[in-house]
Amino acid sequence: MSFSTRSTSVAGARLGRLETPHGVVDTPQFMPVGTQASVKSLTPADLHAAGAQIILGNAYHLSLRPGADRIARLGGLHKFMAWDGPILTDSGGFQVFSLAHLREVDEGGVIFASHIDGAPHRLTPEGAIAIQEQLGSDIAMAFDQLVDPGLATVAVADAMERTHRWAERSLAAHSRPNQALFGIVQGGIDPDLRRRSVSAIAELPFDGIAIGGLSVGESKSEMGATMRVVADALANDPRPRYLMGVGSPLDFFVAVEHGVDLFDCVLPTRVARTGQLWTSQGRLNIRNSRFQDDPGPVDPECRCEACATFSRAYLAHLFRAEELLGYRLATVHNLTYTLDLMRGIRAALADGSFVSLRDAVQARYGDAERVPKPPITDR
Amino acid sequence: MSFSTRSTSVAGARLGRLETPHGVVDTPQFMPVGTQASVKSLTPADLHAAGAQIILGNAYHLSLRPGADRIARLGGLHKFMAWDGPILTDSGGFQVFSLAHLREVDEGGVIFASHIDGAPHRLTPEGAIAIQEQLGSDIAMAFDQLVDPGLATVAVADAMERTHRWAERSLAAHSRPNQALFGIVQGGIDPDLRRRSVSAIAELPFDGIAIGGLSVGESKSEMGATMRVVADALANDPRPRYLMGVGSPLDFFVAVEHGVDLFDCVLPTRVARTGQLWTSQGRLNIRNSRFQDDPGPVDPECRCEACATFSRAYLAHLFRAEELLGYRLATVHNLTYTLDLMRGIRAALADGSFVSLRDAVQARYGDAERVPKPPITDR
Repeated sequence: MSFSTRSTSVAGARLGRLETPHGVVDTPQFMPVGTQASVKSLTPADLHAAGAQIILGNAYHLSLRPGADRIARLGGLHKFMAWDGPILTDSGGFQVFSLAHLREVDEGGVIFASHIDGAPHRLTPEGAIAIQEQLGSDIAMAFDQLVDPGLATVAVADAMERTHRWAERSLAAHSRPNQALFGIVQGGIDPDLRRRSVSAIAELPFDGIAIGGLSVGESKSEMGATMRVVADALANDPRPRYLMGVGSPLDFFVAVEHGVDLFDCVLPTRVARTGQLWTSQGRLNIRNSRFQDDPGPVDPECRCEACATFSRAYLAHLFRAEELLGYRLATVHNLTYTLDLMRGIRAALADGSFVSLRDAVQARYGDAERVPKPPITDR
Repeated sequence: MSFSTRSTSVAGARLGRLETPHGVVDTPQFMPVGTQASVKSLTPADLHAAGAQIILGNAYHLSLRPGADRIARLGGLHKFMAWDGPILTDSGGFQVFSLAHLREVDEGGVIFASHIDGAPHRLTPEGAIAIQEQLGSDIAMAFDQLVDPGLATVAVADAMERTHRWAERSLAAHSRPNQALFGIVQGGIDPDLRRRSVSAIAELPFDGIAIGGLSVGESKSEMGATMRVVADALANDPRPRYLMGVGSPLDFFVAVEHGVDLFDCVLPTRVARTGQLWTSQGRLNIRNSRFQDDPGPVDPECRCEACATFSRAYLAHLFRAEELLGYRLATVHNLTYTLDLMRGIRAALADGSFVSLRDAVQARYGDAERVPKPPITDR
C-alpha cells in the first residue's frame, strides 16, 4: 500500500491518493459499511454506480457468521461478496465492546457471548489479526479496547494503555503480505490521554492511524476538540488518517479540516432505512405525509437511480407499504449523496472553495442529528 | 388491444402475440406480480433484465394505499412505478374475499374492512372498474366473487351467478379507451358449473377470458380437470386466456396444453424470499447447510445477476444473516427462471419439443409443492 498527499488551501486538510492491491482510493473518502459482507440491499454494481471506491467489512460479524475460515476457503472476502475494489476490515474491537454480551476482559483478550446465539467466543489481538488475514482485506485494523468516554479518567487510561499493548501484539501477529495494518488511537475525550495515545500509536510502524472512540456519546464540541488534539499531535505524520464510525454531512467537514482521509459510518445507510434521506436541500423524511403527492425526485441535483427514476410520492408509498424496494432506493440515494459530497469536498479542497461548501452544507444540516432506529439494523 | 395466435404442434396449445398500448407481449407469458406497485425488491430495470414483458398490479391494494385517485393525479400506475411496459390490474375480487376482513356481500357489492387499518370500504363492480381506469392499466379485470370450491354446489353456483351479473355491470361501467377488459370464469371445480360459467362469460364482449377460482385449495388433478372443462368449453375462442394465480413450473405445462396464454402468481417471488430457488436442476433451498461452502452459482444454466455474480455460499450466508440483498437476489433469480422457462415453452411450442421439455421439467419438479411462509408476504 502506498499513500501520497498534497496540501490544500485549507490548513491541515489534505488531498490524497491511497493505492491498495485492489485499486486506488482518492481521499478524503467515505467507506460504505458492509458489516456482514453486504452493504444492505445493494450489489457491488450498485456500489460502483454510487461511486464507492472502498468498502468496510467487519471481522467480528464475519468471524461469527459465516466464519473467517469459510470465507478463506471460498477465496477471501473480495471473491465471497464479489466486490473487486479495496476493502478495509474492522478488527472487532468496537463490536465486542458495543454489541456482544461482554463476559470478561483481561490482558490476553476478551471473552464474549455472540449476539447471534449467545455462544461464548474469545477474541485476542492475535485472533483478530488472524481473522482479518483470512478475510484478505486490503487494510486490517489493530484490536483495541473501547470504553465509554464518560468513565473515570483512570478507567479510560487503563483501556487506552491496554489498547497500546494490544497494538504492539497486533503488529507482531500480522504477517499477510499485501495487507496494510492500521493502529487505533483511543483515550476518550481527555486531551492528555489522547496526546499520549497518539504518541504511543504513531511511534509504531503502522501503515495508517485510526481515531477510535468517537461518536460514542460525546458532544459535537467534545468530538471537535478531540480531533483538534489528535491532529496537532499527529502534526505532519504522512500516513493515512481514518476517523472511525463518523459519517454525518457536517462531521466530514470538521474532520477533513483536521487532516482526516478516511471515514466509515452506518449512518447514511441506517437512516435511509428509516426514510431519512440526505439531499442537496438538507434532510428529508420521506414518511412525511406531504411527500405522498410530490411528483418530483427526492433530490433534483442527485444522479442516483432512485432520483433518476422515481418520485418522492413513489418512495413515500414504498415506505408506507413497507416494500423492500423502498429500503434499497433510500440506501442507494444516501450513499450516492454521501459519496458525491465527499467528491465535492475533494474538489473544493483542490479549487479553494472548501469554506463556501462547508457553509452551504452547514446551512442545510445545521440542526441536531436525529438517528432513529431502523427496521433492520446494521447491528 | 389486439391478439393473434397460431396453432402449434401441441393440440390446444397456442403461440400468441398480444399488442397493448405499452408494448407487445409474447404468449404464453408469465406476469410478475407487483401487488403494491412494486415487484418486491426489484426495479423496472431489474424486471426488464429478467425478461418481464408485462406485470400485474392490484386494484384492491392500490386503492387502499396509496389510493387510485392519488396514482391518477400522479399520472397513472405506469408513471408512478416507472414501468413503461404493459400492466394488467386485478379487480380486487380475489383480495376482498381472501385477504380483507369481509363484512357483507350483497348484490350491489362487498363491504369489507381494510387489511391495513380495519377501516370499512365498499367495492362494487362499478367501483373496481373506476379504480382500474384511474390506475390506467393496459388490461383491467371484471369484478368477481370468489368462493371456496369446497362449499356446497348451491353456494358455489350462487357466487358464480353473481359473478356473471357483476361481469355485465363491469362491462357496462367500463369506458376507458386504450384499456382492455377481461371477464372472469368461476364455478369452482364442478364441471357443469364451469361450463355454465364459460358460456355466460364468453358470450359477453370481453377482450379476454380469465379463469378464476383455481389454486385455492383444490388438488392438482381437480385443477387439471377443471382446465380441461374450460378449454373444451372455450373451444376455438380467439381471445387471450388468462389463468389467474397459478404459477408453479409444472402448472405452466398443464395450462399451456389447455390453451392458456397468460399467467400470474406470487409463487416465484414469495418462495424466493423463503430461500426456495427454482433451477434447471429443480428446487433448491438455499438455507440448507450444504450450500454454505458451495462456491458454484445457484444455477449454472441461469443468466441472472445472482447466478452471474454470486455463489450459493454467499446467498446461503445472506439468508442466514437476514440480509436484504438475499431476498432481492433470490427474487431476481426465480423471476428469471420463470420467465426463461416461459420463453423455453414458447420455443418448444414452435419447434415441436414441448413434450420433451415438459417431461424434463416434470422429472425435476415432480415432487409436491411446498409453499412456506415468507418473511415478508405479498399479502
